[in-house]
Amino acid sequence: MLTDIQIAQQNEQLPIVEIAKRIGIDADDIDLYGKYKAKIPAKTLQALESNEDGKLILVTAINPTPAGEGKSTTTVGLGDALTLRGKKTVIALREPSLGPTMGVKGGAAGGGYAQVVPMEDINLHFTGDMHAITTANNTLSAIIDNHIHQGNELDIDVRRVTWKRAVDLNDRALRQVIVGLGGVANGYPREDGFDITVASEIMAILCLSTDLEDMRARFARIVIGENTKREPVTVADLGVEGALTLIMKDAIAPNLVQTLEHTPAFVHGGPFANIAHGCNSVVATHAALKLGDYVVTEAGFGADLGAEKFMDIKVPVLGKAPDAVVVVATIRSLKMHGGVAVKDLNNGSNPDAVAKGFANLQKHIETMQAFQVPVVVAVNEFVTDSAEEEQVVFDKCAELGVTCVKSSVWENGGQGGLDLADAVVAAIDSNDQVFQATYDYENTSLEEKARAIVQKVYGGDDVVFSKKARNQMRRFERNGWGNLPICMAKTQYSLSDDPKALGRPEGFKVSVRELVPKIGAGFIVALTGDVLTMPGLPKHPAALDMDIKADGEIVGLF
Amino acid sequence: MLTDIQIAQQNEQLPIVEIAKRIGIDADDIDLYGKYKAKIPAKTLQALESNEDGKLILVTAINPTPAGEGKSTTTVGLGDALTLRGKKTVIALREPSLGPTMGVKGGAAGGGYAQVVPMEDINLHFTGDMHAITTANNTLSAIIDNHIHQGNELDIDVRRVTWKRAVDLNDRALRQVIVGLGGVANGYPREDGFDITVASEIMAILCLSTDLEDMRARFARIVIGENTKREPVTVADLGVEGALTLIMKDAIAPNLVQTLEHTPAFVHGGPFANIAHGCNSVVATHAALKLGDYVVTEAGFGADLGAEKFMDIKVPVLGKAPDAVVVVATIRSLKMHGGVAVKDLNNGSNPDAVAKGFANLQKHIETMQAFQVPVVVAVNEFVTDSAEEEQVVFDKCAELGVTCVKSSVWENGGQGGLDLADAVVAAIDSNDQVFQATYDYENTSLEEKARAIVQKVYGGDDVVFSKKARNQMRRFERNGWGNLPICMAKTQYSLSDDPKALGRPEGFKVSVRELVPKIGAGFIVALTGDVLTMPGLPKHPAALDMDIKADGEIVGLF
Repeated sequence: MLTDIQIAQQNEQLPIVEIAKRIGIDADDIDLYGKYKAKIPAKTLQALESNEDGKLILVTAINPTPAGEGKSTTTVGLGDALTLRGKKTVIALREPSLGPTMGVKGGAAGGGYAQVVPMEDINLHFTGDMHAITTANNTLSAIIDNHIHQGNELDIDVRRVTWKRAVDLNDRALRQVIVGLGGVANGYPREDGFDITVASEIMAILCLSTDLEDMRARFARIVIGENTKREPVTVADLGVEGALTLIMKDAIAPNLVQTLEHTPAFVHGGPFANIAHGCNSVVATHAALKLGDYVVTEAGFGADLGAEKFMDIKVPVLGKAPDAVVVVATIRSLKMHGGVAVKDLNNGSNPDAVAKGFANLQKHIETMQAFQVPVVVAVNEFVTDSAEEEQVVFDKCAELGVTCVKSSVWENGGQGGLDLADAVVAAIDSNDQVFQATYDYENTSLEEKARAIVQKVYGGDDVVFSKKARNQMRRFERNGWGNLPICMAKTQYSLSDDPKALGRPEGFKVSVRELVPKIGAGFIVALTGDVLTMPGLPKHPAALDMDIKADGEIVGLF
Repeated sequence: MLTDIQIAQQNEQLPIVEIAKRIGIDADDIDLYGKYKAKIPAKTLQALESNEDGKLILVTAINPTPAGEGKSTTTVGLGDALTLRGKKTVIALREPSLGPTMGVKGGAAGGGYAQVVPMEDINLHFTGDMHAITTANNTLSAIIDNHIHQGNELDIDVRRVTWKRAVDLNDRALRQVIVGLGGVANGYPREDGFDITVASEIMAILCLSTDLEDMRARFARIVIGENTKREPVTVADLGVEGALTLIMKDAIAPNLVQTLEHTPAFVHGGPFANIAHGCNSVVATHAALKLGDYVVTEAGFGADLGAEKFMDIKVPVLGKAPDAVVVVATIRSLKMHGGVAVKDLNNGSNPDAVAKGFANLQKHIETMQAFQVPVVVAVNEFVTDSAEEEQVVFDKCAELGVTCVKSSVWENGGQGGLDLADAVVAAIDSNDQVFQATYDYENTSLEEKARAIVQKVYGGDDVVFSKKARNQMRRFERNGWGNLPICMAKTQYSLSDDPKALGRPEGFKVSVRELVPKIGAGFIVALTGDVLTMPGLPKHPAALDMDIKADGEIVGLF
């Protein structure tokens, strides 16, 4: 069997100018990054504004398990299938982070015969967006420490600087550090830490900005900590929103690449789906809508995290709700939600476990339906699936009145997604519902917003705020931040805040430990449990197996 | 008067495919980064190998003063002047670092009408080389800490890890840090620090590698510290030379841009000129030599640091010595070497101070002549220069039998450098000397190499090693590193190791405090005095004045 990088390197890519031409963009109106990657500059995008929007398809999934669901793979394969059906289709994906590439995953751009290419570039530096974000993030850190060192005119409380440094790597040793050691010349010592770049508020801002000016205004609103009077200190106070915008001037332009089957794909922005909203950029999704009749996009983790945030945080900025939602599941992951351990996944057919695990899928179907959008379930095939296991899913979906189709895009590319494509198009054509968000965020308190998410999306009984979070809520509402949406930071593994509670837990409460104001991004993060914003490397990091040979052959990316 | 960024943005650039065509490279054989930047991939460069080398012109300067010398500006202007004279000319420069851009300088790509463009990109992310270096550097750091955390099979002594982290910013708070705090999950706490990216050994390796395979072999040889038996631990021991090479696969390809007057310019690599060798990449200089009849390049700081290292470290790898050296001086900086303070520079003509300060220039002329290469002195004009001051320099150069010409490229571009171009071509045409390095490094001890530099290049009496450095020398020679060249880390402001000793100090000794093995780069750094490898930001960082307006106009880069 070929690895992803082998499939990708055997594939003949079209020059990206050809791909751009297919969606009506001239070679002169794009900025090439080599032959197979391009950025679409703002000027080109502005000329598309009078185009009508295409149909928007959101791909999400059940709560992830170690068995794997294949959400990105399904997104790519569905896009290719729509292309095969003659639909003018554009895909909009998140861009992968280099840290996990070097750590466990070894690559993230779809898989098998449903990939975006050039995967080796997409998984490494791509067009430099991540590096620009890291640079903007750390420029701000340097400016903060320099401000304090040079006299601290803003009276910043060194104990209350919440802006952390960033690096696009998995590096546990940087989670908690002390900076400014070594005496007077090196400034004031203080506790600090590094987040992985995708967890930076700069990334969330990139993904929620509508244009350069909006990005600049969001940067200005970033709160970096408090002064000794406990008032928020912003980037505008420090005066570097212009420099940050300059650093990000190219990063805001969406990146165009292609799938193995030459469907155009925007791969742009990739914020964490726990402490941020987990969706690709508004600029890219908007551009895709102006260029394609059908746009396939995805959101991070399961539907409780990524899709909820897509609906409640991204849609209001994008100004367009999904016309259909695809919920991806695999038989193997349903079995895990039904109580089967990883080591027992290959022990033959187990329809009872599938039936039990279906409860998790059912909750996500119900949640998505509550947004008043049509739902299609995609069963992403795996070689160990049995016919009777699959039948369980079909039957139960039929009971719910939800279309369920098999998909084999990993093995067969677009051809393996034709049924799914047909089902999605049919669902869109017959849809006459009106999108309904989880809450009205102008007229709902922060607490009520969190409660609405827990009750409607997670299926829990209530939300419980710690004393600290309660105090923060009062302070935030006094600061005028009460009208922002809530971004829940919760384990992705469970509908509840207990990562071990698989399936469809009931009767639980979700505890909010602390709030984090992301005023530039425009949301309030509610931390439940511990959220790791800097991953570590495993005992045998993927980096140890990577190499590039003299003839350019790459190994170890997969 | 227009600022550099205004001049640059008013200039009409040619598409870089046109520039490439002028030196015989097809549009298909380059990788575009937007319309005005390109990387020349290895395959394209290999096809040039049978071309004969052009003539190599090294631009260097007197010891820098706050008055400014204009070395990069002269390099660019000389290249444009040669082009005006009908010579097929290629320029090879270092790429600027983003840290100083945000700090004091606000930009570094020549100045006035002798600039390389697009200066706003070159001064920001350019083609991502700096980011790739930062990433490779910090991937290695993460791998080291992860190795220790996961059981420390190599028995690395956490107190003796010499590999530091890096960031391409001026950030004094990162000079000295403690990482790994926060308990067992975050690894072992240890002291660490961040260098600015250009000070990373990865940068020095990029600049001294002849190709991808050579780079890979150099990465493998990097020494990251010692084990508890005090034996060196290398990247090969950790097994990540392949991953580092993969991360750097695009960075090794030289970047092609153009001057305001459309002379092709490689801008690639930019290591520190104190703790590294301060020259642009061997790959770029080699490519320039294969493509141009005349190649103009520069080395960092004054001739005692940059040019010495060019001759003794870069030339052996490049396999080609300069055919001529240009030593740049300004009347203002000669006056400072003659004892005038910055605040008094505008107090009228002072030929006596020029005559006194000429001693500094004279030493550099003599040093360059000792390498057996023809020398031309360029007086980079400034509006405050008086005719009598200039005459002092002409007369004294005439006494030494050295050609001296005025140059006004900052104000007039290539037209202002025609006399300089003619003088350089004449010097090359009449040259029949054979290049002579400062020492024979196979058959000279590390101590003798350092002594040769101090005596021949700095004009000092001797070199003095601390006890620590002496012990290190013995250990290094036992490790088989005795045949490497010495890379002096010395103040750039003086020929001696006392930054206040301007002009031509005599009777001094240079003290070597400590040695640093850069085995991947292939040299031993000799630290004299304190060398700052992480700059800080000033009270009013340049970043505070930077912005990009909605129409794309950039302010604050200059």
